[in-house]
Amino acid sequence: MHILVSNDDGYLAPGLSALANKLSEVARVTVVAPDRNRSAASNSLTLDMPLRVQQMDNGYFSVDGTPTDCVHLAITGLLKEDPSIVFSGINNGENMGDDVLYSGTVAAATEGRFLGLPSIAISITSSKPRYFETAANIAVLLLNQLIVKELPADTILNVNVPDLPLTEIKGLKATRLGQRHRSEPVIEGRDPRNKKIYWVGPPGAQQDAGEETDFYAVENGYVSITPLKIDLTNYQRLNTLNDWLEELVL
Amino acid sequence: MHILVSNDDGYLAPGLSALANKLSEVARVTVVAPDRNRSAASNSLTLDMPLRVQQMDNGYFSVDGTPTDCVHLAITGLLKEDPSIVFSGINNGENMGDDVLYSGTVAAATEGRFLGLPSIAISITSSKPRYFETAANIAVLLLNQLIVKELPADTILNVNVPDLPLTEIKGLKATRLGQRHRSEPVIEGRDPRNKKIYWVGPPGAQQDAGEETDFYAVENGYVSITPLKIDLTNYQRLNTLNDWLEELVL
Amino acid sequence: MHILVSNDDGYLAPGLSALANKLSEVARVTVVAPDRNRSAASNSLTLDMPLRVQQMDNGYFSVDGTPTDCVHLAITGLLKEDPSIVFSGINNGENMGDDVLYSGTVAAATEGRFLGLPSIAISITSSKPRYFETAANIAVLLLNQLIVKELPADTILNVNVPDLPLTEIKGLKATRLGQRHRSEPVIEGRDPRNKKIYWVGPPGAQQDAGEETDFYAVENGYVSITPLKIDLTNYQRLNTLNDWLEELVL
Amino acid sequence: MHILVSNDDGYLAPGLSALANKLSEVARVTVVAPDRNRSAASNSLTLDMPLRVQQMDNGYFSVDGTPTDCVHLAITGLLKEDPSIVFSGINNGENMGDDVLYSGTVAAATEGRFLGLPSIAISITSSKPRYFETAANIAVLLLNQLIVKELPADTILNVNVPDLPLTEIKGLKATRLGQRHRSEPVIEGRDPRNKKIYWVGPPGAQQDAGEETDFYAVENGYVSITPLKIDLTNYQRLNTLNDWLEELVL
Repeated sequence: MHILVSNDDGYLAPGLSALANKLSEVARVTVVAPDRNRSAASNSLTLDMPLRVQQMDNGYFSVDGTPTDCVHLAITGLLKEDPSIVFSGINNGENMGDDVLYSGTVAAATEGRFLGLPSIAISITSSKPRYFETAANIAVLLLNQLIVKELPADTILNVNVPDLPLTEIKGLKATRLGQRHRSEPVIEGRDPRNKKIYWVGPPGAQQDAGEETDFYAVENGYVSITPLKIDLTNYQRLNTLNDWLEELVL
Repeated sequence: MHILVSNDDGYLAPGLSALANKLSEVARVTVVAPDRNRSAASNSLTLDMPLRVQQMDNGYFSVDGTPTDCVHLAITGLLKEDPSIVFSGINNGENMGDDVLYSGTVAAATEGRFLGLPSIAISITSSKPRYFETAANIAVLLLNQLIVKELPADTILNVNVPDLPLTEIKGLKATRLGQRHRSEPVIEGRDPRNKKIYWVGPPGAQQDAGEETDFYAVENGYVSITPLKIDLTNYQRLNTLNDWLEELVL
Repeated sequence: MHILVSNDDGYLAPGLSALANKLSEVARVTVVAPDRNRSAASNSLTLDMPLRVQQMDNGYFSVDGTPTDCVHLAITGLLKEDPSIVFSGINNGENMGDDVLYSGTVAAATEGRFLGLPSIAISITSSKPRYFETAANIAVLLLNQLIVKELPADTILNVNVPDLPLTEIKGLKATRLGQRHRSEPVIEGRDPRNKKIYWVGPPGAQQDAGEETDFYAVENGYVSITPLKIDLTNYQRLNTLNDWLEELVL
Repeated sequence: MHILVSNDDGYLAPGLSALANKLSEVARVTVVAPDRNRSAASNSLTLDMPLRVQQMDNGYFSVDGTPTDCVHLAITGLLKEDPSIVFSGINNGENMGDDVLYSGTVAAATEGRFLGLPSIAISITSSKPRYFETAANIAVLLLNQLIVKELPADTILNVNVPDLPLTEIKGLKATRLGQRHRSEPVIEGRDPRNKKIYWVGPPGAQQDAGEETDFYAVENGYVSITPLKIDLTNYQRLNTLNDWLEELVL
């Protein structure tokens, strides 16, 4: 088996090598990752500039593009042999709730799924993680199950692992995304030349962290596993929309 | 009423001013848009660098960030008075099928919805559009209906308008996203210094363009209106996933 | 006569149009300028990425590159007909003393000279200039003299014009570059995510502002005109270096 | 003694570690280098964005800025203790003739000199160098002489070392910069979306490669050492300019 590993923290991130090393014990692994931190890149794809690839001393491919670029490039031409699964991570910090939409880690997995492969995004819920090993073990566990039992092609898994020793993990929980309150306000400032600058503010506090959510699972010591849709159509609202449109006259 | 207008083609794009001008006839409009073309930026948010805003001669605010940055900045602090609706577009070219995930135009609308506002993304299905006026009229039509009748808060509208005179438009259709075949392979080349470069290849051909899809609607002269989800959870797969996880032992 | 005009403040800068408009009264003018502010770009040349050019509504060419890229592109292929002179400016703020080395305005002129053309960089010594007209008039004055009497091919002119009405300008002075004290320290800070950031600090105070310097001329109401070398060889030190090297044994 | 080492090829470049390792044998070395290839950055200085610094596993500091930023940051605040000398290199490829103006390698040395320190730029004249060791040895040789005998403060040394075993080097030569013919034309192309792109073309052929030039020295197996000016004033042309200006009436 051949696994493609990518991330959004860049090819030097310790979470990436923790994941790649552990998966290497059970499969052939190729790493194609951004040349630097591209967090919050979402599904951004580089169409207007060419990409460059460099193979590093440790064998990883470093790309001057986004996580989506990395996976796209790898699967549509860079790799001689197609991978059969895509892993993205281990991200340095959680990817939960509605923030998932901005996540480069999740985007790399999404791109894998778009291009036809089962894909898993995996994050550790601490900004200074101590237990990458736990998350890496969870990755292997999921991989083994994925080999035995496929997942539906309309879904990727978004996995968030508490930063705990494996023995302290309570279990695995299928979750839905929680929700946050509206982001904190933008932070205005001045640069040293006295020109106005704005920094995007911190995310809002948790608004919906009910029992079924990723927020809840992780806070209670469980690994949160959220199935994410690739097709953004809101099927439940198609009828509502039909009614809504019916009244309109061109 | 106060409408925020943004886009991903940049503040100079003719589709942006076509939309802003038309909406100005019925509401107060503020434009906050990227300082240059940021197509395919998806929901990318700039967290590691400050943003700068410049008010241009025509009153538009130009931001050195992504479409998501523009809407985020506008709503969380730049504007004195909160807008009540977000429009994004008129994009120069279609945003249909699974490509929607990469779209900066759709991302700007998504960000509006995240921050609590009804949001509509609007694109014209030609790369050299002649009938921006048609799309602008559709925007006003939808705006008027939105004022009368709210849409569910878990949804944005993704509107694709054929590049035709308004009189030739057959009607409005609620659609689901179509699907494409896997993208064409990456295009390898050499730069003039003989270094290898890669360009992301073109999108794949239409694979699922069935009657309910956006592809089908537009090809048959209809305005396609797809309700898009903000919550990426694949609720339909939660049970499947539960079963799948049940067998796993930590 | 055909004049190429560029700058480093970007194609929208009022100093650029003030210069281009005034020169248009006496010659044919083509403007090729960066698509955004590229101050302090120095002679940076884009070798690893392609450049894109867009002709704007006012006829200016906007390039997604540095000032050096703009002049390089214009002269080595973009323009059907070679220009005979390059003007760069009017820069928003002075370019004097040793800071000149960082200047994109001066770099654009240097590139013109490298590619075989007489070149003049022109700046106005205020960050919120009121009298662009004065600097534009000086440009025409120098142009007229340049037509009559060539300048040596190893030299460009670096012109700094006080922000005063033309009638208050005392005259034109040939100057040497002044010198500054060492820059102020770098400014340490934290971004809103509590990560350390550094801003380059302000330039040092004037150290050598003697009578022959650009600093002195401008402070006393004169237009400062400094001849700048293109060849960076320090000919005066060749003998010293020879002695210095003589003692070395491989 | 404390030496600051930087470059423009990025902190991972083998030429950088070859230089830093060799200098470490005789002095304390701190490396502050760009996080990626910034060739042709010239003296570009980042004023509008903050810089970030990361200390890597090998102790090097990686900066998301230009070579000039790296040296500026290091000397004006990042380093606890001031270095006493700046080395830049070993650059992967020559920095000779008039191209020197674009060079990031030379710019890093220039910034060191601006900030008060003796500075040496060192390059190896092959794009796939085999003998970094030779250039590293030359660096130590020059360092030893610099300790004994200072160089004038208006000068930096630009060193170009042939890619040969040390025993095949003929000697050291003080040189002037040679000159090239005008660059080759810009290379027009189309990206895969059929949009026009332009690549900066290759440099021109050697025009002036006379006996005293760097071109000549290197071609004949010598190390070329060119003293470069920091002050760009063309003193020799001050009188010419005075005459030229005398005739002008405001």
